[in-house]
Formats: sequence, structure tokens, C-alpha cells
Amino acid sequence: MGNNLLIAQSGGPTAVINASLAGVIQAAFDQPDIDKVYGALHGLEGVLNNRILDLGNAFSNPDLLEKLKRTPAMALGSCRFKLAKTPDKNYEKIAQTLRELKISYFLYNGGNDSMDTVDKLSNYFERSGMDVKCIGIPKTIDNDLVETDHTPGYGSAARFVAQSIRDIYCDSAVYDRHSVTIVEIMGRNAGWLTAASVLARSQEISAPHLVYLPEKAFDRNSFLQQVEKLSQRQKTIIIAVSEGIKFPSGEYVNEDTKSEHDSFGHAALAGSGRYLEHMIRTEFGFKTRTIEFSTLQRSAAHLASSVDLKEAYRCGLKAVEFAAGGYNRVMVSIQRISDNPYLVKYVPVDVSKVANKEKLIPEDWITTNGIDLTQDFINYVKPLLGKDPFPSLFMFLKEDLKTN
Amino acid sequence: MGNNLLIAQSGGPTAVINASLAGVIQAAFDQPDIDKVYGALHGLEGVLNNRILDLGNAFSNPDLLEKLKRTPAMALGSCRFKLAKTPDKNYEKIAQTLRELKISYFLYNGGNDSMDTVDKLSNYFERSGMDVKCIGIPKTIDNDLVETDHTPGYGSAARFVAQSIRDIYCDSAVYDRHSVTIVEIMGRNAGWLTAASVLARSQEISAPHLVYLPEKAFDRNSFLQQVEKLSQRQKTIIIAVSEGIKFPSGEYVNEDTKSEHDSFGHAALAGSGRYLEHMIRTEFGFKTRTIEFSTLQRSAAHLASSVDLKEAYRCGLKAVEFAAGGYNRVMVSIQRISDNPYLVKYVPVDVSKVANKEKLIPEDWITTNGIDLTQDFINYVKPLLGKDPFPSLFMFLKEDLKTN
Repeated sequence: MGNNLLIAQSGGPTAVINASLAGVIQAAFDQPDIDKVYGALHGLEGVLNNRILDLGNAFSNPDLLEKLKRTPAMALGSCRFKLAKTPDKNYEKIAQTLRELKISYFLYNGGNDSMDTVDKLSNYFERSGMDVKCIGIPKTIDNDLVETDHTPGYGSAARFVAQSIRDIYCDSAVYDRHSVTIVEIMGRNAGWLTAASVLARSQEISAPHLVYLPEKAFDRNSFLQQVEKLSQRQKTIIIAVSEGIKFPSGEYVNEDTKSEHDSFGHAALAGSGRYLEHMIRTEFGFKTRTIEFSTLQRSAAHLASSVDLKEAYRCGLKAVEFAAGGYNRVMVSIQRISDNPYLVKYVPVDVSKVANKEKLIPEDWITTNGIDLTQDFINYVKPLLGKDPFPSLFMFLKEDLKTN
Repeated sequence: MGNNLLIAQSGGPTAVINASLAGVIQAAFDQPDIDKVYGALHGLEGVLNNRILDLGNAFSNPDLLEKLKRTPAMALGSCRFKLAKTPDKNYEKIAQTLRELKISYFLYNGGNDSMDTVDKLSNYFERSGMDVKCIGIPKTIDNDLVETDHTPGYGSAARFVAQSIRDIYCDSAVYDRHSVTIVEIMGRNAGWLTAASVLARSQEISAPHLVYLPEKAFDRNSFLQQVEKLSQRQKTIIIAVSEGIKFPSGEYVNEDTKSEHDSFGHAALAGSGRYLEHMIRTEFGFKTRTIEFSTLQRSAAHLASSVDLKEAYRCGLKAVEFAAGGYNRVMVSIQRISDNPYLVKYVPVDVSKVANKEKLIPEDWITTNGIDLTQDFINYVKPLLGKDPFPSLFMFLKEDLKTN
């Protein structure tokens, strides 16, 4: 084998995944043991279909690496390809491509599915007698990977959520009448991103007023009671809800919505936010609006967290360092040394411990009523958001204290 | 009468309307002829219900004015109150409050409805023998006021639209398959904000690929043909659509959607974007997604345009200057001196010429195929967005040229 490196990106986009790619490219350029740096287009699909670029040529101008760092989503493209459980001809085709390109280091940047891929390929290469170091680089706005304090991508998405909830609160509070704004946030099983909405709060901003997470069963009656209670003491109500909230039966709330409607309705109504909106409008008649952050929450480069950007870049650097240092079948893990000052270190962890697992919000970081987060959660997430874009935001609805 | 000033805000929020309020307060503090500065909560409703604050007390600390400038939405709150056509007891109640507070200057900050209010009240005060100078301060993200080059609030909303379309494009382009993303943008009759989506384009960003404005009748067949043609040469398609597009019959496209569905469906489906989404999914089977910017487009303070912020502030200053200079029944108008360098001046215009009128995009700024904007439009709107947050955004889907 030669001493070339191959990197690919997989899964859903984030605002900072390209910063990890920039870190890999920079470290590989700097590492005397590594000759060529290749990038596969669209993850494993690019490896399978020989769509592979020489990144040394593409990034001969160092200014481009700086630009790459700040480009949201995935410069190499992504895929949703899943390797078969037992090695098949795809495994062999991948191995063949790696042999032809003289790859000694294979780096894969993604979430828990991607760590499963790293695990499988690494085992296959070993059994095939190939000396290829396989390294996973974590990435997901969902923050649901185990064996790491948090994941690159999460801090920036959390910052978008917190700042946007502030903007939405200011907007919603202008009229002197009852209004409910439901903000639907990504996260099918883990509520980390929805939970980050509580970082919107400040001396002037009380939103969000209710937070619904997939970790807690959703109870219709209790929800309506909460809204009624709130509406007796304030006019503006902001509710943060995860797309993945479930009934006590375990059924997704938006599945219930689907079952009530025709094929046209399906697409439009398949959201937990619109489900709650309908409940509130029917029960109370308040002006109610649902806002879905959609893909903006994962791609809004203008709100990227400086901490997240730096950590994503460093995960890329470390992946190369670990690979060149002889590590195999590991993921770069971020381990927190302290909250304040915020300090972390980067360590290799066994990728098989990460693959196909999901980290949920710990029970004791959710308040006992199930609809808010504790100070421990806030201490955990606050440093990840980087600089507050509006530390001194000033609200001046003077009678707010009484009427809102 | 005394020499006090009363200011109120009305209509929909913007990211910079509070900058105009800050300008009014600052200028009134600096103007020796003006004694007290009052603010009415929730527009005319506050005047009618005596919910009036002494802003001299509230802003005795000048730091607070700086904070106010950057707070999105409306610090005094808004209303949707419309005065009757012929003077009734509300007119008298307003006049009574102004007499009691010894108001010589009444400033109202809003869109064309607000200019109508200024016009009506000014006429009523004159007939009642009251010497109150009434001044309108323009504000609307819709940019649909006549007699002014553009309106404060538009530049910031346009900047949000352009930057978010870039983020969405980067996000949508990561998968190697056909996808259509429809972005629904505010504007019932005027397409200024939807048109601003073309400012997303750069060397690397080709989106938006189709732009549908309320100024042009929406034709279903032509729309499907455009999508089909595009899909033959690229995989990622981004469509910017105004919420207010209409069929050739003049009926709003989202009205058609409504008529097909039950009361639950109404709320969720009442959008032009979801209507197009349904058409595309049915006709082509492509992965299709609708993103609604909702209230974020008007309240995202973190993307406020520095030019817009400055102009909104200066409109506030000028309103006080015009009032103290003896002008009555005028709106502060922004008139453009040149595009490059971008230079404007502020002049008083007759408010009755602005009231209840709507400025649409000029015919010759829309391309002949009706789905794009000309360079003249770009020259007009570009300076209003202020600094480009990512002038050097770098995309690197290498085979993009071929496959996307």
C-alpha cells in the first residue's frame, strides 16, 4: 500500500462539517508521512463509483481552505448509503478502489450510521489483510452520539435555535392579544436541539415557555392544561417542540396527524408543530402559528458558533494525527475538562461503541414536570454556542410585566 | 398646546423599526423646542386607552437607546386598528388625549395604512383648530410604499432572504439525486421580498432557479414545463415563491388549496409553497420540500442590514426635524441620488399621496419570461442589503458543473 488518505462525508449537513474537512486537508498536507489526499464525492457512493477528487490539486491555494471552513453543508456531497451487514460485493469494490489509490488512511465524517460504516469496513480490511487505518470524525446537529461530550454541528444549530426563538418572541409580543407560536425543531428521538431553545432566555426574554422533548411522553390533556394556565398570566406564548415527540403509546404525534388525512394532507400536516397548533386553535381559539426551522437550523452559516467551528476543524486535524499515529477503528471524541473556563481535549474512542447507538438527554437534566431543562443542562450547552450575538438585547414593552 | 411629542408604531414588525424609534427619541431629546417625548403602547389603541409612557424617563440612560436600535420588532407594540372613514368618537378621544398631554407633534411609524391614519388625523386636528404637526415614518418589509425609493425594514428582510437561500441551496445540493426546494416568502401583492432572493446568486450559487411573483399571473402548465426543463440539466432546484401568487383569474393560489380541504387542512395547507410542492411531487415524484421563512424574515436581527439600520434611524431623526421645522401631513421619504456610490437624501412628501396605495415591481424589472429579475432590479436592491455576510462563500461540489 501507499501512504495516501481518503476522506468522505456522510449523513445530514451541518454548518461546520466543511471545517472538519478543512482540518483533515490541512493536517494531511502538513503530515510528511501522507502523500496524496483524496476526497470521495457523495460518501461511500463516490468510493463505489470512482468519483474521487485529488484534494491536493483542488486546494493548492490555501485561501480556499479558509473559504471551505465557512461554507455550510457538505462540499464533497453526502449519501444515505448503508453497507450490508455481511460483506458483499460492495465491500470488495471499496477495498479494490482503496488498493488502486494506495490508501493507508480512510476517514469518514458523519453520525452513528457513519461510525457503523467505519467499524464494518475496518473489520473487513483487517480480514482482507489490508493495512488501512479507519477513523471516524463525529458530526451531527442532533448531538446524539455516545462516547463524546457533544458533536460538531450541534453548537451552531443550537445557536440558530436560541437566537431565532428570541427573534420570534420579539415579533410575537407586539400585539396586545393572546397568541401562541409553536416552533418545531429537528430531532426524531433525541431532544438536544429543542432543549437548546432555553438558551434564548435572558433578562428580557422569557421564551420558550414550554418545551416538549421526545424523551418525555406527550400527554394531550396535560399540554392543554399548561397552555391554559400560561394564558391566564400572559398573552404571548412560545412553545418549542421536537419533531419527534411521542404519545405514551410510543407512536409519533405526527403519525396520528397523518392517519387523519388524505394523501395531499399527509405531506403538509406531517408535523408535530401543526398538530399542537390545531389542538390549541380548536380548544382556545387563540391566534396560533407554527414555525418550522427546517433546513435553516442546520445550514445557517451566518449563525455558526465560533466554538463549534474551531472544534469541527480540530476534530479534522486530530483524525489525521490519530491515523498517522497508528490508531485504527476509532472515532475522535471531544471530552470536556471543565465548563468554566470551557476546556476540552480530543481522544480516540472505540468506534464500535458509538455505532448505531443514540445518546438521549439525561433524565436529571429535564425538570420534573417534563417541560423544561435544568441549570445543569444550561451549563453544559452554553459554552458550545460561542459568543452571544446579542448579549444586550433590550425589550421595552413597558407593561409587559402586567399584560404579557 | 404645549410642545410635547407623541410617537407610536403600527403594522407588522421589522428588524429595524426600533431604530426609527431610537432616532425619534434622540432627535426629540436634542431639539430645544420639544419638551416631553411620549410613546403610545400598541399604536392608536394606546392613544385611545391612555397607555402612554414618558420616554424621557424610560431612556434617561443613553446606553438603552443603543440597545433599542438593535432590538427587532416593536418596543412599543403594535395594533391593527383602523380609523373610521368619517370622524367618530375615536377621533375625538384621540384629540382629547393629545390636548391633555399638550402634544404638538404626532409621529406614526408604519406602512400605507398608517399613512392613511396620519392623513385622517391631521385633517381632523386641523378642522378642530388644533395645531398638531402629523408626520409619517415609513416602515414595511414589503417595500410597497409609493413616493419613496424604498422602505426601512425591506433591506434587512431582503438580506435574510438572500443569505437563507444560499444556506438552503448548499444544504439541498449535498445529495446526488433530484430535489426541489420551494421557499415561500412574504408579500401578498408586491413581490419585492421574493425578488430579493436573486441576490443569493454568486459565482458558486446558482439559486434561486425560478422566481414566482404576485405581479405575474401563475400558470400551472408553464410552471411544470419550467421544472421539467430545469430537471433535465441539474439535480438541485430552488424555487422562490411569493405567498401571494395568483392564477390568471386573479384568485390567490393558496385560496385554491383551501377550497380542497377541511377545516384542519385549511390552516396547514394555506400556502402557495405547499401548493407548488404538491404539484411537483405528483407530476415528477421528486423529493420536494417547502420552507416558509415565516416571521423570521422580518425579525432576524442578527441579519439586519447596516444600511437599513442607519436609514431607519435617520428616518426617525428626520421626522422630528420636519415636525419642528413646521411640516405637517408629510411622510419622510428616502430618495436615491445614486446607486454607486450609494447615496440618498430624505425629503418630506405629501402623506395623502402614500396612503392606501401599493407600489409593485415595475414591469421592466421583471424578465420577459416572468420568472426572473433584471440587472436594473439588482442594481436597485443590492445597496440596501449592506455588507454581504459571505462575499467569498466557497462551494466545492466539483462535479456540480456536470451533475447539478
